[in-house]
Parts: sequence; C-alpha cells; structure tokens
Amino acid sequence: MTGSLIIAGLGPGSGVMVTPEVSDALAQASDVVGYIPYVTRVAERPGLTLHPSDNRVEIDRSRHALDMASHGRNVVVVSSGDPGVFAMASAVFEAVEAGPPEWRDLDIRVLPGITAMLAASARAGAPLGHDFCAINLSDNLKPWSVIEKRLRLAAEADFVMAFYNPRSRSRPDGFARTLDILKDACGDARPVIFARAVSTSEEEIRIVPLTECTPEMADMRTMVLVGSSTTRIIERDGLPIVYTPRSAKP
Amino acid sequence: MTGSLIIAGLGPGSGVMVTPEVSDALAQASDVVGYIPYVTRVAERPGLTLHPSDNRVEIDRSRHALDMASHGRNVVVVSSGDPGVFAMASAVFEAVEAGPPEWRDLDIRVLPGITAMLAASARAGAPLGHDFCAINLSDNLKPWSVIEKRLRLAAEADFVMAFYNPRSRSRPDGFARTLDILKDACGDARPVIFARAVSTSEEEIRIVPLTECTPEMADMRTMVLVGSSTTRIIERDGLPIVYTPRSAKP
Repeated sequence: MTGSLIIAGLGPGSGVMVTPEVSDALAQASDVVGYIPYVTRVAERPGLTLHPSDNRVEIDRSRHALDMASHGRNVVVVSSGDPGVFAMASAVFEAVEAGPPEWRDLDIRVLPGITAMLAASARAGAPLGHDFCAINLSDNLKPWSVIEKRLRLAAEADFVMAFYNPRSRSRPDGFARTLDILKDACGDARPVIFARAVSTSEEEIRIVPLTECTPEMADMRTMVLVGSSTTRIIERDGLPIVYTPRSAKP
Repeated sequence: MTGSLIIAGLGPGSGVMVTPEVSDALAQASDVVGYIPYVTRVAERPGLTLHPSDNRVEIDRSRHALDMASHGRNVVVVSSGDPGVFAMASAVFEAVEAGPPEWRDLDIRVLPGITAMLAASARAGAPLGHDFCAINLSDNLKPWSVIEKRLRLAAEADFVMAFYNPRSRSRPDGFARTLDILKDACGDARPVIFARAVSTSEEEIRIVPLTECTPEMADMRTMVLVGSSTTRIIERDGLPIVYTPRSAKP
C-alpha cells in the first residue's frame, strides 16, 4: 500500500490548457484536494473522492493531503495556473518540513501548468519577451514595505512586471499604492495590461497607459502586466498588440 | 482565402506537457516553421509542410511565416517552452511592426506553453513559490552592463532568479561573471538548481550551494534557478526538496 501525492496545475481556466500529464494524474487519483472553485473543475467519477476546502486554509489542506497519501491514497492537490507560482506547492512543502519525518519520503511530484502571466501575456501579444519579474501583491504573508521595495527595484532594473493577486475586497488599498509607486518610479505612459479571467467565458483584456491606470481596473481575478521602458504597442483594428522586443535598446 | 498565424509553445520537451490547444493547432496547420530541433518534434503528415530553419534567424523565419499566412496558409510557428518567454513571439511581432501594414490585420494568436523555469521548478520542489525574476543571460541582444545591473538589483530585491540561456560555446564567460556577481551580492550558500533537458531522456537535476557553483555546471540546455535568502532545503533520501516559503520571513 504505497500512496502518492501529486501537486498539479490546472492552468488558467480552460480545459484546452490542461496538460496531458495533469489530465492523466486526475484520471488515476483516488482523492482530489483543493480550493473549492478549482476542485469544481475536476469531473466526478466512481472511485474518486473530491475534497473541496475554503480559501486561506492552505496548510490544513496540505496536511490533510499528506496524511491521506501516507495512508496509501493516490492524492492530487490541484491549483489553478502553475502550482509552484504563488499556489499550493510551497504550502505543501511547508507542511512536509514541519510534519512527521515519514512525510519526507512520500512519493511527491509537482506537475507544472500554464500560470496566469503566460496566459495573459499570450492574449496581449508578447509583453514578457524580455527580462521580467513576478510579484504577489498580497500583503497577507509579507509586509507592505517589502512589496514597495521590490516595486522600486524592479522599476530601476527596467523589468517587465507581472502582478498576481493585485486587489481583493480585504485588501482594497494596496493596488492603489502600487500604481502610485509605479507612476512615480517609471514616469512614462508605458502600457499596462489588465487580463481578467483569461480563457474563461468572462475573459476581458484591457490595455491602458500607466498614467491612466486606476485601482478599480483590477480585481481578484485580474492578472496585471506592466511593460518595461522598451515595451511597444502595435495599433490595429481591435485590440492592439503589446510586445517587448528582445533587445534592451530597440 | 484567409490565412492565420499561430505562435505555439511546445513545452520543455515531453509530449505530456504539450497543451491540447497546441496539439490541435498543429493538427490543423498547413505549415510549421521553427528552429530545427523544435520542428523535429512535430509529426509529419500529408498536407503539412515543415520549414525547419537554423538558429539566430528569428526575423527571417518570422517574415517567412507572416508572408505565408498573408497568402492564405495556416501557419504555426513553434517554440520550445512558452513562445512569449525569450522565444519566438517577440521576434514575430518585431517583424509585424517593421513589415507591410497588412500584416497587422492578420489573424495572429499566441498559444502559451510550459516554459523551462516552471518545468525546472516542479522537478526541484517549489523554488519559485515567492516573488521571482527571469533574466536571459545571453548578451547577444543587450549589453553585459544591463545584465550585471539587473543581477545586482534582483539580489537586493531578494528575488528568486531564473536564468535562461546561461551559457553557450559562443558565450563561455558570462555565466562565470554571473556567479561572481551573485556570490558577492548574496554572500550566502543559498541553493542553486541546475536543471538540464527537463522532461527529456537526458534530464539531469543538480542542487548546489551558491558558494560551490562553478560555470561548467551549466550549458545551453540548462535552466538555472537561484534561491532567495528565504529558500529552504528539505533533506531526504535522494534529491532534496527545494522550496521558497510563501512568507517573506519564514
């Protein structure tokens, strides 16, 4: 009776972006664990038990999954996007490190997925085509001072920036401060992409000059990409193309 | 006669990481264009013409693909990994911007893929679990001074770092300079992951303290991930787990 734990990325929403290895893992699982809206994406079938749980209980959820795997179950923990990017994989490994020694020797694997910034970038063109950074704007697990420092250094490095979790009902102000910092640090009208619910029926893409961005353009389901000083716009009928050239000086 | 151009990501190597939408695009293509080793990954079939081309001809390749699409062909440009991350999408849009106006109104779509850093991260655990940056270490298209500046700012921001194209025969020295800068700027033995040819038969993963890294640990097929000051190692039988906790201060 040897159990296993797979931490799998479901991609941004549509089934056409779920990799075959993730689909296979779900087809062979005895148990699927995750935040309610992600578990809802997994089809029910005989022999599979779904364990949806609420938001913000990542460590409890991880311990539950590890415990089931240690008792011989074949458990898949699902995340949206990629499980290693601001998602469940780190929470599971935090639980492993703090848990009983035998959890370290479990068969644990991470299966990558299409993370939100890649899906958002593809819809807009190629804004991530040159050096970039990814910052989680939630200050639930780090002080705001760390976020502000990283924003200023990222602007100085002239990175394209990808923001996860830009804004939520419980954190209405952080994204406004982020925009103020960027307007000050960048000092130009570089393009910003607001990509909401990419690949779902509610998908919405907006491209806005940094100088005209306002906080309410983002919500919990929005990925925000901020161009570097070299990011370009190609105007055409419909949504323009936004891309960052491969050269540092175009 | 309406042609189309799709820029598709094949993922790091294995077919199990190719998304269904990319497989479908290849199944419907009349022409596939790309660097030789990536085109080789596409199965031949009647009605499909493969156009493999050499490295470093990205703009010529892009113009060829755009020209065929403008003449009614259904063209797929293939990249490894994700096409928007240091790959073909930016080259195609550079060609669009510099090309005839009618190219702007072509049906052009980008289909995301599993980029190398996500596949490498998954194999090691979850090193990208906190804020990170991605830097292309090739100085073919940017001066070395820009790379050095970004490395120092990324270390100051305490980003995890993902390095694409760390080292090649034509650029043997840049990665040695990168390691010297990081040893100086970081001043600790944080874990570095060398992930070579992930998901292929030649896959090799090494985890080395920064203080013990040497340039020849990387080659053209290696993805390098450098932990932040908070990145942790869980020792166990076999390869240890490397992950970065979700909190800035664990």
